[in-house]
Amino acid sequence: MAVHREERRAEHVTRSLRGINRFMTQSCWAQRRDRRGVMDFALGNPQDMPMPEITQALKFWSDPLTRDWFAYKTSDECARIVSARSLRERTGVPYESEDIAMTNGAFSAISVGIKLLTLPGDEVIFNLPPWFCYEALIEDAGAVPVKVNVLPGSFDLDIAGIAAAITPRTRMVLLNTPHNPTGRIYDRQSLQQLADVLEDASRRNGRRIYVLSDEVYARILFDGNRAVSPAEVYDHTLVVYSWSKQLLIPGQRIGYLAVHPNMPEREELREELVAIQIASGFAFPNALLQHAIGDLDRLIINLDHLQRKRDRMVSALRDIGFEVHSPQATFYLLPKSPIADDEAFSALLAERDVFVLPGTLAEYPGYFRISLTASDDMIERSLAHFEAVYRQSQVQEAALA
Amino acid sequence: MAVHREERRAEHVTRSLRGINRFMTQSCWAQRRDRRGVMDFALGNPQDMPMPEITQALKFWSDPLTRDWFAYKTSDECARIVSARSLRERTGVPYESEDIAMTNGAFSAISVGIKLLTLPGDEVIFNLPPWFCYEALIEDAGAVPVKVNVLPGSFDLDIAGIAAAITPRTRMVLLNTPHNPTGRIYDRQSLQQLADVLEDASRRNGRRIYVLSDEVYARILFDGNRAVSPAEVYDHTLVVYSWSKQLLIPGQRIGYLAVHPNMPEREELREELVAIQIASGFAFPNALLQHAIGDLDRLIINLDHLQRKRDRMVSALRDIGFEVHSPQATFYLLPKSPIADDEAFSALLAERDVFVLPGTLAEYPGYFRISLTASDDMIERSLAHFEAVYRQSQVQEAALA
Repeated sequence: MAVHREERRAEHVTRSLRGINRFMTQSCWAQRRDRRGVMDFALGNPQDMPMPEITQALKFWSDPLTRDWFAYKTSDECARIVSARSLRERTGVPYESEDIAMTNGAFSAISVGIKLLTLPGDEVIFNLPPWFCYEALIEDAGAVPVKVNVLPGSFDLDIAGIAAAITPRTRMVLLNTPHNPTGRIYDRQSLQQLADVLEDASRRNGRRIYVLSDEVYARILFDGNRAVSPAEVYDHTLVVYSWSKQLLIPGQRIGYLAVHPNMPEREELREELVAIQIASGFAFPNALLQHAIGDLDRLIINLDHLQRKRDRMVSALRDIGFEVHSPQATFYLLPKSPIADDEAFSALLAERDVFVLPGTLAEYPGYFRISLTASDDMIERSLAHFEAVYRQSQVQEAALA
Repeated sequence: MAVHREERRAEHVTRSLRGINRFMTQSCWAQRRDRRGVMDFALGNPQDMPMPEITQALKFWSDPLTRDWFAYKTSDECARIVSARSLRERTGVPYESEDIAMTNGAFSAISVGIKLLTLPGDEVIFNLPPWFCYEALIEDAGAVPVKVNVLPGSFDLDIAGIAAAITPRTRMVLLNTPHNPTGRIYDRQSLQQLADVLEDASRRNGRRIYVLSDEVYARILFDGNRAVSPAEVYDHTLVVYSWSKQLLIPGQRIGYLAVHPNMPEREELREELVAIQIASGFAFPNALLQHAIGDLDRLIINLDHLQRKRDRMVSALRDIGFEVHSPQATFYLLPKSPIADDEAFSALLAERDVFVLPGTLAEYPGYFRISLTASDDMIERSLAHFEAVYRQSQVQEAALA
């Protein structure tokens, strides 16, 4: 009468999150991350104190102006107006406040977006290396994950690969641009090619294939780059945004899902969206964050500083001998591991209190991910360790050869 | 190539939420609720200003003490300790912090609890009248809702009715005690009888039937009552709690799901719980609320005041002629509608800016729900309207007879 393991529906979700879950709870990093002096490049988490303006905004909007200040709140109209304006300015697409569903961050926007447009068993294509929670979000929503590698070297979209992966059950392509962990911005031409492929395939299937576009890094840009949204070239796109990266406060969750204003079913989706948000666990942001979002939207982490960290790190790693590209956007570097076993290499770094994310955990073996949210001090102190471990692994490889 | 309505998986969820969704967005109440002078008894929402201590706590804990103050936060250990202690003191069951999953309020605790223990197609029994979101939460989790009326008059658990509703696919009984909207506290004897029924049926089925116990009103008690938790008599119970009612801030969402310390599968459920919380949209509370919960747990709305409002309202409604019981707990009265059509009766009240929830929206036709979160002033001003509409409906009934 005990629960048998094979009876658990949670099992596949648990399996796809097991690697990252163990890393977060049982790894060296999990045990030592809070110790003084560690050099923590593992996750996109803040390694400096939060911007003081965030605390100011939270305090300011904690003073209730009305009796329903902290009452049940679905998508607050003011928050939707802020979101629509901001998305309009960024993409040029004429979003209105009614097109915006405020969500409890990007996790729930992605989950709700998949549930809105897929039937159980529908296939959702996404790119490897992925953000490590896509597969679990797709599975929990009852859809089937289908994986396509980005092009090696350039990390560009493999349009032909995506086209080849489309079946009659394909309902959605989950894109992430700018892309975690490669830092790649997909250019307008690639996105237009993809849109053409999806338009053709939708016609062939007699069933629309949608794009769910995760744009949480849309404002974390280097070198004056601009990130094109798939919504600019393909009307059947849902855009996901979250302020977590822009403000570097992933524990204070607010984001949105935006329905394209040219989607023919735009209006009928609205009631369903609210119902899905309620039914999936009240996936709306807290009242306080919705009140504060007008102020918070004007803030952004120091991108010049982030770019200086990128340049320092890329150039120092290349000097050591690492093969590493310079990302166009996001928090991440994705160097090649000098030995094939990226987990072994990451373990060598961990022995020296330098923590990175092994590529294997993001389904990209042979690489490791560095988060530039690390502090300047962490970066400077880490370089001698990166060099020592690089040399050490070269010696090991030579001995094995 | 448009989405066909029959293709939407969201449809059944949308359908079960349609009544309440329309009430919330298109009813007289939705249009007029913010107007000065309305008498709003519709939802369990605050009609007085929030307790100042809540704002104090939010401000205090908005000052970051560490660089990861607003970083990704799953179940914070301090918040789990507060929760386990509080649940231990209330129930006498020896919960430990590891048994607690912090959630984004009760909605997500219920959703996660169903996903943790049911397979798609499993049946979940719950009582009518229900909280109006149970059905959608069960459906979204892929389980099948099965409804059993509480006993008429007493509003007690219909143990025989629940026993008769059990099938080989029954996996869970979702209880709510104290019960919204009847205000009934199920006594120890009823819960023990139910536990015996579930123990027998689990043995007969060769498969455990669990209890998911929604205890969000466990501290909203009148007359010195105590609410017994099903966890006190049945080990295979998951307890759901939320601070939304205790603090009357349903827009600032924090709650938990507690796994019974005597559940044999207690430990193996932990990894699955985290995975489900991540995969269902990061169903953890915001960092700020987790930091603040030690302070917030000590606060509670003024229960003496609430009880005075209950007594005033029950006695005035009875004097008018309404048939209404006096609830043992919760925010709600559930008077009988003086005419069979509770929606028509509620509409007559709405014409006078008095807003109640028609019983039909909570699958309990012939009744209407009054929330005692209304202010004293609203209550006093409403009584003449209740009386006038009562007389008016008596005249209508007599004319029809």
